Amino acid sequence: MNSFGRKFRVTTFGESHGFGIGCVLDGVPAGLKIDEEFMQSELDKRKPGKTKFETQRKEDDICEILSGVFEGVSTGAPIAILIKNQNQKSKDYENLRNLFRPGHADFSWFFKYGHRDHRGGGRSSARETAARVAAGAVAKLLLNSVGIIIESGVYSIGNAKATNLDFEAAKTSEIYSLGNEDAMKEVVEKARTSHDSVGASVKVVAKNMPKGLGEPLYYKLDGALGEILMGLNGVKAIEIGEGVNASVMLGSENNDEITSEGFLSNHAGGILGGMSSGQDLELTVHFKPTPSIFKELKTVTKQNENTTLELTGRHDPCIGIRGSVVCASSVALVLADMLLCNLGSNMSHIKKVYDISI
Amino acid sequence: MNSFGRKFRVTTFGESHGFGIGCVLDGVPAGLKIDEEFMQSELDKRKPGKTKFETQRKEDDICEILSGVFEGVSTGAPIAILIKNQNQKSKDYENLRNLFRPGHADFSWFFKYGHRDHRGGGRSSARETAARVAAGAVAKLLLNSVGIIIESGVYSIGNAKATNLDFEAAKTSEIYSLGNEDAMKEVVEKARTSHDSVGASVKVVAKNMPKGLGEPLYYKLDGALGEILMGLNGVKAIEIGEGVNASVMLGSENNDEITSEGFLSNHAGGILGGMSSGQDLELTVHFKPTPSIFKELKTVTKQNENTTLELTGRHDPCIGIRGSVVCASSVALVLADMLLCNLGSNMSHIKKVYDISI
Amino acid sequence: MNSFGRKFRVTTFGESHGFGIGCVLDGVPAGLKIDEEFMQSELDKRKPGKTKFETQRKEDDICEILSGVFEGVSTGAPIAILIKNQNQKSKDYENLRNLFRPGHADFSWFFKYGHRDHRGGGRSSARETAARVAAGAVAKLLLNSVGIIIESGVYSIGNAKATNLDFEAAKTSEIYSLGNEDAMKEVVEKARTSHDSVGASVKVVAKNMPKGLGEPLYYKLDGALGEILMGLNGVKAIEIGEGVNASVMLGSENNDEITSEGFLSNHAGGILGGMSSGQDLELTVHFKPTPSIFKELKTVTKQNENTTLELTGRHDPCIGIRGSVVCASSVALVLADMLLCNLGSNMSHIKKVYDISI
Amino acid sequence: MNSFGRKFRVTTFGESHGFGIGCVLDGVPAGLKIDEEFMQSELDKRKPGKTKFETQRKEDDICEILSGVFEGVSTGAPIAILIKNQNQKSKDYENLRNLFRPGHADFSWFFKYGHRDHRGGGRSSARETAARVAAGAVAKLLLNSVGIIIESGVYSIGNAKATNLDFEAAKTSEIYSLGNEDAMKEVVEKARTSHDSVGASVKVVAKNMPKGLGEPLYYKLDGALGEILMGLNGVKAIEIGEGVNASVMLGSENNDEITSEGFLSNHAGGILGGMSSGQDLELTVHFKPTPSIFKELKTVTKQNENTTLELTGRHDPCIGIRGSVVCASSVALVLADMLLCNLGSNMSHIKKVYDISI
Repeated sequence: MNSFGRKFRVTTFGESHGFGIGCVLDGVPAGLKIDEEFMQSELDKRKPGKTKFETQRKEDDICEILSGVFEGVSTGAPIAILIKNQNQKSKDYENLRNLFRPGHADFSWFFKYGHRDHRGGGRSSARETAARVAAGAVAKLLLNSVGIIIESGVYSIGNAKATNLDFEAAKTSEIYSLGNEDAMKEVVEKARTSHDSVGASVKVVAKNMPKGLGEPLYYKLDGALGEILMGLNGVKAIEIGEGVNASVMLGSENNDEITSEGFLSNHAGGILGGMSSGQDLELTVHFKPTPSIFKELKTVTKQNENTTLELTGRHDPCIGIRGSVVCASSVALVLADMLLCNLGSNMSHIKKVYDISI
Repeated sequence: MNSFGRKFRVTTFGESHGFGIGCVLDGVPAGLKIDEEFMQSELDKRKPGKTKFETQRKEDDICEILSGVFEGVSTGAPIAILIKNQNQKSKDYENLRNLFRPGHADFSWFFKYGHRDHRGGGRSSARETAARVAAGAVAKLLLNSVGIIIESGVYSIGNAKATNLDFEAAKTSEIYSLGNEDAMKEVVEKARTSHDSVGASVKVVAKNMPKGLGEPLYYKLDGALGEILMGLNGVKAIEIGEGVNASVMLGSENNDEITSEGFLSNHAGGILGGMSSGQDLELTVHFKPTPSIFKELKTVTKQNENTTLELTGRHDPCIGIRGSVVCASSVALVLADMLLCNLGSNMSHIKKVYDISI
Repeated sequence: MNSFGRKFRVTTFGESHGFGIGCVLDGVPAGLKIDEEFMQSELDKRKPGKTKFETQRKEDDICEILSGVFEGVSTGAPIAILIKNQNQKSKDYENLRNLFRPGHADFSWFFKYGHRDHRGGGRSSARETAARVAAGAVAKLLLNSVGIIIESGVYSIGNAKATNLDFEAAKTSEIYSLGNEDAMKEVVEKARTSHDSVGASVKVVAKNMPKGLGEPLYYKLDGALGEILMGLNGVKAIEIGEGVNASVMLGSENNDEITSEGFLSNHAGGILGGMSSGQDLELTVHFKPTPSIFKELKTVTKQNENTTLELTGRHDPCIGIRGSVVCASSVALVLADMLLCNLGSNMSHIKKVYDISI
Repeated sequence: MNSFGRKFRVTTFGESHGFGIGCVLDGVPAGLKIDEEFMQSELDKRKPGKTKFETQRKEDDICEILSGVFEGVSTGAPIAILIKNQNQKSKDYENLRNLFRPGHADFSWFFKYGHRDHRGGGRSSARETAARVAAGAVAKLLLNSVGIIIESGVYSIGNAKATNLDFEAAKTSEIYSLGNEDAMKEVVEKARTSHDSVGASVKVVAKNMPKGLGEPLYYKLDGALGEILMGLNGVKAIEIGEGVNASVMLGSENNDEITSEGFLSNHAGGILGGMSSGQDLELTVHFKPTPSIFKELKTVTKQNENTTLELTGRHDPCIGIRGSVVCASSVALVLADMLLCNLGSNMSHIKKVYDISI
């Protein structure tokens, strides 16, 4: 299904080519100031064509709010958002009508649904993530109202790794680099000019976390993050806190001891038992290299005949770069939902909201 | 919430101490032969106390079916399963009533809910996974009916890594090792005798996969696996196919080319665009070391006063070992759900089931 | 929340005034021919301003499909539909900004959400039902593919009752009357000219029903019909089969005996144990009179000060008339969902879809 | 599926014959005092065999809490409840193995699922409602904490109607009569002694309602009540407020005017736009006569051969009597869910719970 979240629920629609993409946001509390400029600025961070490190498809990605906001404030009604497609070149994809691009959804989509919109991946295009970013912007507005802040940046591209985690620098970096930007750019540029692509990893943090966000036992905070992030186009691994490294550690190394001043370390990445501990949420997301490259690839037609694919069109040489923006938006969607889901976990909430004196 | 799945839906209940644990399985197609011996054998693989590499709490974990099965066959009614607790030592936990164990859910649970069952982690105990294994056994019966087979094993413990992937050997290994068993055992034994614990990683594969399982765009196959596995106690990272490694690869290395004979590689781990490609599903799960160790740890009381924890009781020195069984069961739950969710994705299903002639 | 259905899932958005209304349809099987002319014809039946028996707000209610359909066929992607508002007169509502209209959602909305879009009821306007009718049209296309046909008509207006059930005649009647049309029109006209409004009841039937649609025990066919119909603006009672009358009958009168030729009667209205019996589905829906009348009404302001409401604007004198169209669409949404939910209830479905030979 | 509710979620299991029935309650706020005596007293009101006006199957219906409660208080973990079957006479049903009882779920269940537990209706037995009553008792404890009180009683049996609505008297009446008890008893007795059964109607009220409970637009308060009540065994009609009568009224008669002292009438039955208005919730539920009667009935075998049914066993002559208890419990489940779902509808809730100073 095309929805995410239980209380703060986003349903997206639309394809890479055609009218556009959009979403319906259900469950936004009434009375939230909807800052459209902020929403547009979030979309601007994700929009393609800004630098040579991205696809050259240029889209303005204008955010139009169709409903649910009245006089600048959410009303409790669903917020529908539309982002029209502008710079489509469907012809670029005409040669794909009858074959499957390796590494893309084409193959599995065809066998599931029997036919498909072959233009730019159709529904499976990463263009859908613009809708997530728009929805994530509303989520951030809600989170900000309780002080939560989410930041992200590119931690590595190929073998070029950030040596520190400078989330401030990432905001103004052309490639959202957390550090070691020049080396990273060189890796992308080398991949791009050799008609290839390259993988990347991204770090996301959330600060000022309340304690206790996350629902046991099948909608834990880590579980929900696992779902939305692993479901992002091109993501092949997720780590929380120590992540993979935890599997080679001893308990005495990995445990986060506690004192009256707080935790002495954060190997857990801010989650204990699926619920936030109040420490910073810390996670790492690994993106595969863009499957769309300009080298000849073996593939088959819908009739399972051997053929080769010679791709044209415009593609990101490293999806992890713009992916870092989408990761932060995705985390915002999870946290906004958890903030609302958490309401009612405790009788004290009932008492506060329904004003029961005791 | 305590449910997983949309069509094949499991709701679990119960705590480490108290009456027992169990689950209600909703959505099992009527007419499935319920092999209770197989279900018990699955629980036997997970049950504690079999070897010195596991906790010494001994539990028979007898599987009782309370409803939904009549004359050996599922009826379409919900299948309730009960696994009583037998070997409880609540007294072991009396000293925990007022403090938080580092690395456990105690801390976040308390702040979310205001009070807790301190005995053995209560609801957050890994004992809950027995219910998943029971439910997963029914899922496997359903999957087997269409030919799908799921296997798992321990890939690494600390720095001892399997040099090959022998899923057959894992079945009879005391520690479910995929290879290099002696080295792995040595790592566990060393951790155990030094009152410590150690992390591990687990591999799961699913064979004979149909094409097209997984729902776009927010219940993708990888997303759903991410949710359930990242939500398992102690899991800190998930990898699908190349996983973390994908982030350092080039597109030309990572793409799986296709010929009329099939795919030439499986870097994707069997998933394209969130849907199964028909290739083997391959994933890796990373477990942190058991937080319960027998070394003094700094912690605080509920009143935020400094204190130290000196643990007694019985604990797994390496949760990844029995975790490998639970991972396979969890994957079975996802696949069974996806098998059912996929019904109706295509008009051909409507025609077959409702017998429309064309 | 603003969604209905579990597999065939519609999420609606939009308000009476503002950009427009619309919906996202998730779960439509791929490969369904989407007949846009039929969809528009359904909207035309509901659209206002056709006769003097309806509100004089004229809206063309043009159905625009934004996504999910490619080359005339559903792709498996969500189908977004937009219906723009055209004939808005927000000024008509300016005097309502600060007070509550008796019988409307204004009062409860304000206390739930703290503020509201006062123009024409905002989100609570019956204008939302246009989105249901558009979604219902797609549902009907799916249902037609297995032979199911849904019909509806007005059974009574005030005390003027149809003496027979002529669903054919209802199709061409200006007021969708099932019979006794002139008497019904007279009742509406009398209410209208005396600045009042009047209640009505509607009958819906579904023919060629498969056996076994409906999910036990909390998504029964009657339960789901109860939810969607009772949730329609202005509906105050639902009856299935004998309905209210069943409460005065004896078991020997009410039981539907069965022979090898079929049932001997249909007091049950086509549902047994919450599942369709294969007999015609028969139900009756009771609408209250339009609360918007042109007589002075006592009410209060947001500050709870006494005042009076003197309504202007354009309103249906009898919401049951156009409501009969919406009832049929709503039943279509339920049945389409049940058709899909039913898939997998039985191992025979698994065998047919996944082609397992036995 | 076998679950009801979105935040306060009950999943039931079990059959008329076999181990027993039960439920898992998810989402109960932690810190609620669980009064087991009250829960048992609720089950006692529903339990069969108390008088000659009920089935003579005697069951103690002992309520066992398996999980989720620690030291008398809910912990936030799911509350599992078990009610064992005691007085089963499966032999009574042996003759039903191969045929369908008219008016029962047997027929549709068989065609949906392919086979069935023929003993006492299996899963479709009204015995499942014991689980609802147990869950409803917890719901009432939660509702009582904010002052909401739910009452119910039998309004009519056959043509014997209560002349007033005495909910106090109903509590101690053998048949939960709201008035005119002797006449009602006579109707039941006459049906019973003539081997027949009779229909009935039930009234439910909820008092001290907060304003704004109910979620637009597809989980409205009236919609959710419609779903759960129409899904109760034997229910064929639901009315809210004026109900059926609203369809013959004029707007000027049906509108509830408002003054600074409150509403001047309650034709709406306490719901405006799907949300509670703060007035008493008032609804009427119509039960058909018990289909199990001791008269010969025409029916068919599974092979569609004509036969006759001559029923033995023990059955309620009027299911509406005990049904009145179940209706109140069902309304409690809806209201408890709505109480929790409502949290977060408004930014003021966020501010109160997360303690944001402004």
